Amino acid sequence: MAAARATDAGAELYDFAAELYPICRSITGNGLRATLDAIGRRIPLKRHEVPTGTRVFDWKVPLEWNVEDAAVLDDAGRRVVDFQAHNLHLVNYSEPVRATLSLAELLPRLHALPERPDWIPYRTSYYRRSWGFCMRAHERAALRPGRYRVQIQSSLGKGALSYGELAIPGRTRDEVLFFSHACHPSLANDNTSGLSVATALARWIAGARRRLSYRFVFGPGTIGALAWLKRNEQRLPRIRHGLVLALLGDPGPLTYKMTRAGGREIDVIAPHALGATAHTIPFNPYGYDERQLNSPGFNLPVGRLTRSVNGGYPQYHTSADDLSLITPAALAESLRACQRIVELLEENEYYVNRCPKGEPRLGKRGLYGALGGAGPKVEEEAMLWVLNQSDGEHSLLHIAHRSGLEFATVRSAAQALLRARLLRPSGGPVPGKRRVAA
Amino acid sequence: MAAARATDAGAELYDFAAELYPICRSITGNGLRATLDAIGRRIPLKRHEVPTGTRVFDWKVPLEWNVEDAAVLDDAGRRVVDFQAHNLHLVNYSEPVRATLSLAELLPRLHALPERPDWIPYRTSYYRRSWGFCMRAHERAALRPGRYRVQIQSSLGKGALSYGELAIPGRTRDEVLFFSHACHPSLANDNTSGLSVATALARWIAGARRRLSYRFVFGPGTIGALAWLKRNEQRLPRIRHGLVLALLGDPGPLTYKMTRAGGREIDVIAPHALGATAHTIPFNPYGYDERQLNSPGFNLPVGRLTRSVNGGYPQYHTSADDLSLITPAALAESLRACQRIVELLEENEYYVNRCPKGEPRLGKRGLYGALGGAGPKVEEEAMLWVLNQSDGEHSLLHIAHRSGLEFATVRSAAQALLRARLLRPSGGPVPGKRRVAA
Amino acid sequence: MAAARATDAGAELYDFAAELYPICRSITGNGLRATLDAIGRRIPLKRHEVPTGTRVFDWKVPLEWNVEDAAVLDDAGRRVVDFQAHNLHLVNYSEPVRATLSLAELLPRLHALPERPDWIPYRTSYYRRSWGFCMRAHERAALRPGRYRVQIQSSLGKGALSYGELAIPGRTRDEVLFFSHACHPSLANDNTSGLSVATALARWIAGARRRLSYRFVFGPGTIGALAWLKRNEQRLPRIRHGLVLALLGDPGPLTYKMTRAGGREIDVIAPHALGATAHTIPFNPYGYDERQLNSPGFNLPVGRLTRSVNGGYPQYHTSADDLSLITPAALAESLRACQRIVELLEENEYYVNRCPKGEPRLGKRGLYGALGGAGPKVEEEAMLWVLNQSDGEHSLLHIAHRSGLEFATVRSAAQALLRARLLRPSGGPVPGKRRVAA
Repeated sequence: MAAARATDAGAELYDFAAELYPICRSITGNGLRATLDAIGRRIPLKRHEVPTGTRVFDWKVPLEWNVEDAAVLDDAGRRVVDFQAHNLHLVNYSEPVRATLSLAELLPRLHALPERPDWIPYRTSYYRRSWGFCMRAHERAALRPGRYRVQIQSSLGKGALSYGELAIPGRTRDEVLFFSHACHPSLANDNTSGLSVATALARWIAGARRRLSYRFVFGPGTIGALAWLKRNEQRLPRIRHGLVLALLGDPGPLTYKMTRAGGREIDVIAPHALGATAHTIPFNPYGYDERQLNSPGFNLPVGRLTRSVNGGYPQYHTSADDLSLITPAALAESLRACQRIVELLEENEYYVNRCPKGEPRLGKRGLYGALGGAGPKVEEEAMLWVLNQSDGEHSLLHIAHRSGLEFATVRSAAQALLRARLLRPSGGPVPGKRRVAA
Repeated sequence: MAAARATDAGAELYDFAAELYPICRSITGNGLRATLDAIGRRIPLKRHEVPTGTRVFDWKVPLEWNVEDAAVLDDAGRRVVDFQAHNLHLVNYSEPVRATLSLAELLPRLHALPERPDWIPYRTSYYRRSWGFCMRAHERAALRPGRYRVQIQSSLGKGALSYGELAIPGRTRDEVLFFSHACHPSLANDNTSGLSVATALARWIAGARRRLSYRFVFGPGTIGALAWLKRNEQRLPRIRHGLVLALLGDPGPLTYKMTRAGGREIDVIAPHALGATAHTIPFNPYGYDERQLNSPGFNLPVGRLTRSVNGGYPQYHTSADDLSLITPAALAESLRACQRIVELLEENEYYVNRCPKGEPRLGKRGLYGALGGAGPKVEEEAMLWVLNQSDGEHSLLHIAHRSGLEFATVRSAAQALLRARLLRPSGGPVPGKRRVAA
Repeated sequence: MAAARATDAGAELYDFAAELYPICRSITGNGLRATLDAIGRRIPLKRHEVPTGTRVFDWKVPLEWNVEDAAVLDDAGRRVVDFQAHNLHLVNYSEPVRATLSLAELLPRLHALPERPDWIPYRTSYYRRSWGFCMRAHERAALRPGRYRVQIQSSLGKGALSYGELAIPGRTRDEVLFFSHACHPSLANDNTSGLSVATALARWIAGARRRLSYRFVFGPGTIGALAWLKRNEQRLPRIRHGLVLALLGDPGPLTYKMTRAGGREIDVIAPHALGATAHTIPFNPYGYDERQLNSPGFNLPVGRLTRSVNGGYPQYHTSADDLSLITPAALAESLRACQRIVELLEENEYYVNRCPKGEPRLGKRGLYGALGGAGPKVEEEAMLWVLNQSDGEHSLLHIAHRSGLEFATVRSAAQALLRARLLRPSGGPVPGKRRVAA
């Protein structure tokens, strides 16, 4: 039954990834909007539009790019490179072109992967006006000398950068941020997998009342993350934890990438929730939008969850990153991992013992066996640990680590003590910089 | 000669433990008072009485319990369970009872250990009014159906909780606290062993003028420790080190249990004094009164010294914890270990180099060889280390650890420098929270 | 060509050590002045004279010592111990003597090394007025009973202690201190090697404009270092790094001795510059003038560079520490090691990212490839690391360690970012106590 549900969940995740897969996304434009609309049919996403030319820290929102058609035609009029066949064929953000070139003139514009002759590479030129095509190396090699007609029916004009956002308020204003990049065109793992898992996660979180508030952002990489940071700068101190979600459908092991600061609560929570089969890797300043969120001016407590890592699988940034690379099982496992992280974030409270001088009388509150002389039960032991360590500096996970008890045992001891009014919740040691000793 | 003295010391310790063994102690009452009186015949103990009903943090001092006799009699009038035979037979704090019951009614009141059929368990019911008996499992199994007469001539009435205290002033007000629980009835290791060793230790400490002040408390577990804490709350900041003393007569290895905070001076001193054959175990919030002393509202620098640990030997909390379990040799070794800890606490001073800019001229003070060119002697090396590290942050034990020199060598170098007025004593880095890097 | 230059450098270093070797140095006097003059012919050394009797912390500058001749003559008038043959024959600082003694009276004044019968030991008596001779054990054993004439034509009179100093100003006032002891008589490794390497290092540093300021001090051990410290106490906070240079010509491996505090920038820089074949040893308060510079009242960030360590080679403090022990190759390697340390100190800047919120647009500054989709080049990766970590707390060496990139790669990335005005130099985390996590 649980297995069947898991399978159902996997199928649903896969189907949504497959629905998003064909759309030609970019960092602006209608493909991005269509993607946000599809997500918006599942969760109440609010779409934001940041106008072309808006200054975003060191950057400026570029002209909006849209494309209707693009092809290279030989002198017989055959489309030897055809955007309609695969949207990776066109260098993303190619300017409009109508020209006739010799093969020699054309070749520098045709990108291919000699070592992977059957795969189309993914290339972009967001910030330098240019154009080009990507194709299979063996097809490029087969091109005969002659005249070729290039037709790119694209537009670069004033418009906007779009991103979608969903805030799910909890009982506290402490916020967990999830960010997924939504700018890559037909690449399944990178990142229709992340979009699909994040969408399902948001729906699951919204399905129950939570202690923490949650915020999901779906937007283009780099410039989208920066635009969101710029518009939300005043609210960043509320972010207590976060994850960038990407590459969640491939068969690689779940991989947590630590925050820049290291030692944040998420850096302990995520590995604990993922368990022994997952990998934890140190921070580095390349990758997805953890780059922006962890820049020294923000230094947010935001890690990253992927399966394989960027650049870490052969199909990365090629047409082989297609729907055959991702599986319902991997997507479902990724979603469950995110859910476990959320559960642990919810549950890993910091408490203050309201009776810190000596032990409180557990017996009179029905929390301790009445007959003395025999050793304590594990539940009693857990209560003593929680009372002893609850000074506002140690979370339940810290207590579990120190005591060697299961997190669930410590958590239920804390709940019993809370019901007995022997604990009160605490905001944790230092807002925005909570550390949990491992 | 030293061996003979050690044997004498062991015999004396054993004899006093044996003297205390038969007394039926509890957390209040005349057995406890008789115990304090016996200790008071050896050291000038001051007895304190805390009246029934006194509020002690989350607790209240209970009614005082005393017992004259208790038995279960069969229909032939034979005492099939007899408090006179062993005071463990009665559940400690049993209310007065005079009743006749069938065997079926009686059985739930009769505690036994099926897996140890020859041992009487130790059970208490301090805070829930109840009654019961403890007996050997094979005797319980032999009871025939029939009517049984229960006679418990105990009293629960207004009275007081007693504890004994001895303060031994030293040259400084910095205090070392020793706490031993005095509430267990006829259990030899737990804790006539601790009471005997603590009494001898106090006598030994009082026999010489010391740098530090010492305070010994003998009282009932939990409520006694809390009552003492409540009455002495203003003076707790003076406590710079401490040990709970218990289970010091069995053949297990000496075992030091660390403080809650860890890294306190006692946490370095005790393992160093005990040497390589002793064990050091991490803090946990169960055990003896280190629980109360290390609760988050006090967080005192108090560790614990035992041989076996609570629950760590089969005879624990049974009649088999009798005088055959403890030995003069083990008691004597425990006392010597306590003395070594005290010596090291006394000797492990923090100094400040009064000549901190460059090295002082040791030669003109007769502390350094006059002829240069050959390497320094170990005594000279030790003086250089002490001068270099004595900035008030590093104790002599720290210097011994860093230099790799013997503590005694470092200590005698410091004494030579002190005589030469090149050092002055320092209170250590932070009152009440001195840390010694290991 | 580089090898040839290295050989030339080695020869030059060796020749200067050989030039200094015969001079009879001491902690005062004309031998010390002649040594400073010889150094002063190579670098613009300023000589300082501290008058006899000057108080220097716990010390006083002693009477100046000079010696013209010294010998022990047998009754045939043969010089059986002859200062003219080797200046180690005379106990350094021997008072003037003209006396005739029996062999029995003389023997306690004749120091020898029975276990090394061919070597003359080096002995001093700076602070206790005395006299004596040092000789080979086999020659001492050959002395026949009889009368011996002792002639020591030395003087102990009012004068001064000399030291030489060279300050090389840089663009900042942050200073690097190099100290070499110049008081040992004819001992080649200890320390004409250090004097020669320090002199060449000073000339090399002065040959280019540097970021840091440099200060070289050549003076007698202990009292010379203390005199310099006394006269420069106000300027000590400027010292950000330093090295004592000594024993740099023997065949042992380069050995860095850490500062008292440990974790200073020099403690990371020096091992990194020296590479894997060098040794790093912990601080101890014996050795050369790191003793004084690292006394608790100064606690300067000054380590020490030697090859073998004091007392660490058999010829130490004997006549066998002669010009055959040191080699041009070892001296040249030591100089290069010092130069690499200086280069790394110069280059290991702390920067602050002027664009800390998100990543700056490297592409528009020509620092990043225009075509997106492929992974970053190592230079781009290095720029991302430098931008991400440059918060004023992390030096370039820290960034190299954290990223796993070569220091040179990180350094050139920082230079590119500096040219692009994306970084500004920072003074480092805490003046005078910069720490670099390893």
